[in-house]
Amino acid sequence: MEQESRLSTDPQGTPGTLRPGGRTAKVRAAALEATRETLIAQGFHALNMDRVAAAAGVGRTTVYRRWGSSAGLVADLLREMAEQSVPGADTGTLEGDLRANAALVLEALTDPRSSAVFQAVIAAAACDAECATALNGFYATRIGAWVPCVERAAARGEIPAGTEAAEVVRAVSAPLYYRFAISREPLTTADAERAATAALTAARAGAYRRAPH
Amino acid sequence: MEQESRLSTDPQGTPGTLRPGGRTAKVRAAALEATRETLIAQGFHALNMDRVAAAAGVGRTTVYRRWGSSAGLVADLLREMAEQSVPGADTGTLEGDLRANAALVLEALTDPRSSAVFQAVIAAAACDAECATALNGFYATRIGAWVPCVERAAARGEIPAGTEAAEVVRAVSAPLYYRFAISREPLTTADAERAATAALTAARAGAYRRAPH
Repeated sequence: MEQESRLSTDPQGTPGTLRPGGRTAKVRAAALEATRETLIAQGFHALNMDRVAAAAGVGRTTVYRRWGSSAGLVADLLREMAEQSVPGADTGTLEGDLRANAALVLEALTDPRSSAVFQAVIAAAACDAECATALNGFYATRIGAWVPCVERAAARGEIPAGTEAAEVVRAVSAPLYYRFAISREPLTTADAERAATAALTAARAGAYRRAPH
Repeated sequence: MEQESRLSTDPQGTPGTLRPGGRTAKVRAAALEATRETLIAQGFHALNMDRVAAAAGVGRTTVYRRWGSSAGLVADLLREMAEQSVPGADTGTLEGDLRANAALVLEALTDPRSSAVFQAVIAAAACDAECATALNGFYATRIGAWVPCVERAAARGEIPAGTEAAEVVRAVSAPLYYRFAISREPLTTADAERAATAALTAARAGAYRRAPH
């Protein structure tokens, strides 16, 4: 709500009305790129509106009016990441799809640049409610992109009808994020493969069926 | 190493030589209690050495010399949490033990005070290497406390020989921490039950057997 009322004072319109090549879109792309680079190099707590404005070549007033705070910049970066989110795989089997998903999560959490962004947004979400909401929205989009894989598998009879598709998707990511952000242990290909295998095994056995009410 | 060399300048000795009722132990308990209360009320980034010293009734010099930084305080709080870690359950079945584990993790992540501490230490670990190492050590202790449950289950023939016990323990926690700190979704009893069921099902089916080399 706060974000929307801030944006509605912008004569160029809200993100929903942006033309991709328009000036507002270019300002946003530059500010979010500078935000991303700062997060990669120095983390969330080094993020500073004035330096983002300078690095992006955007007026300070614009940055303050549009994003309000460094947390607002991170939240909008998460919205951009969600907007650029790509569909899940369709390999023909649930095993193939879940392995593809695990491999992508592993890549995101081990690539030096991408993993630094994820560390920073997880830290930001732990410190700031707007970032927490945006992180929740980002994962809702990512989980939603992979739900059709599980639904197709149920339609093919690979897993029981009534399986909570989103739970199977979460089950692939969760062990990888647990090592990455919680237990802070190394992450390897073997971890990604085991995460996919465990989720697949439990799904086939009906462990993710909707609980009766 | 840095922490040890700092502590070795303390004539009262290192944590390994503390008498529980000694002055150094009392200073540590008071400083870590003040640290915990600040994390609960305001989070990691509000943590300030001077205010911890004042709240704990401990000299500023002592706090600076002993912990060095607010990250050092959080890291030592995590070491204290690991020291106070209790053994895993022994209900007689792997299902009972994993359900007990899931219930404890759920409680830790939903109790208002405890969940605030976990949010803060996860944020601290994402921002600071000393805190990340300490968080890793805390979970190594917690995972280790529950490994015997899985080893007993393998000895009873409930799960295949060669199961990586620590992986089964991680598998119970991971979906709960994923909702708590990553996807930022609500956490309920149903999530804890599903986490235990999925880990049990996958373990019985051999999904956590050691990979051949």
